[in-house]
Amino acid sequence: MKIIIVGASGTLGQKVTEDLEKEHEVIRVGSKSGDIQADLTNPESLEEMFKKAGPFDALVCAAGSGHFGPLKEMTGEDFKKGLNSKLLGQVNLVLIGQHYINPKGSFTLISGVLSDDPIQNSVNVAAVNSAVNGFVKAAALELENGVRINAVSPGVVEDSPQLFDAFPGHKPVSMERVVYAYRKSVLGHITGQVIKEV
Amino acid sequence: MKIIIVGASGTLGQKVTEDLEKEHEVIRVGSKSGDIQADLTNPESLEEMFKKAGPFDALVCAAGSGHFGPLKEMTGEDFKKGLNSKLLGQVNLVLIGQHYINPKGSFTLISGVLSDDPIQNSVNVAAVNSAVNGFVKAAALELENGVRINAVSPGVVEDSPQLFDAFPGHKPVSMERVVYAYRKSVLGHITGQVIKEV
Repeated sequence: MKIIIVGASGTLGQKVTEDLEKEHEVIRVGSKSGDIQADLTNPESLEEMFKKAGPFDALVCAAGSGHFGPLKEMTGEDFKKGLNSKLLGQVNLVLIGQHYINPKGSFTLISGVLSDDPIQNSVNVAAVNSAVNGFVKAAALELENGVRINAVSPGVVEDSPQLFDAFPGHKPVSMERVVYAYRKSVLGHITGQVIKEV
Repeated sequence: MKIIIVGASGTLGQKVTEDLEKEHEVIRVGSKSGDIQADLTNPESLEEMFKKAGPFDALVCAAGSGHFGPLKEMTGEDFKKGLNSKLLGQVNLVLIGQHYINPKGSFTLISGVLSDDPIQNSVNVAAVNSAVNGFVKAAALELENGVRINAVSPGVVEDSPQLFDAFPGHKPVSMERVVYAYRKSVLGHITGQVIKEV
């Protein structure tokens, strides 16, 4: 299987890449590293990435950020900017990628626990993660040629200790569990699912 | 109680207004009608609306649209435009309105069934509705002075028969149930809830 991994050098992306590259051809994509460089916030850059990568069987995304900050001081512009990477970037991976993916291929996006279990300063990311989940459920109805789509929604992961204080009472999730969630989406047969590992 | 109703002349807004105005002071807001005119997609227009309305106890939104269209033909620009009204417009009502609302006031936004139970051509609206739900849950943690926030998430309503064909198997929801959902949010004590009437 030929698998494009966007965010391959990130905390999660590294582990997912290590796992999938054992048995599959992996194309690493990063903003500054990897086999292909691409900017998630720039649709032209993503189109270029798909052209370079050629037809593929699975796209895995483990990248994307939103806006963290207090509601009290937030502006509409802050919120709008917060949509550009993790929401619009991932949506564009699918909108553009659907024209390059092989039949029976799959998309696996990333959302996260804040959609259901928010923390302080997370209104934008909570909205973004929820939107990714809603998009995935709806897109599964329309993708053609047996192409599947799912989201992995992890809690705060054990390899991000710098985030623990911001997530009081959230039990850190093992990287192994998140890697298994990606395997379930990429190698399994499910579609339209949000795989929650919390 | 002084209640601002955004979208007061719409299918839902009319019924909610008829109900709430029996016992409360209602300020009708519409794009072209009502006591105050405002454009949900324009933050300056919303700021102006709050200045004209003055301090208030509840804001009810029954307005906002997204982009409907096939995934196969959708572009990132289509998707982005689809975020402007029902997502960013409603988020701006809260971001701006939090500085004008009275203590113990409430915001009631609208999402909809497509977040959980999508139909053909609904990827944008599914994402938008999901984002509104996630935003509401997270914003409830941060609003100050006892201010509450909820979302009403209705199914296709009985007064929109033109939509029935696009929602196969979705049982139309009575307007009465949706009006009750708004009452629960505005007059009750809940916060951070998505009130699903499907």
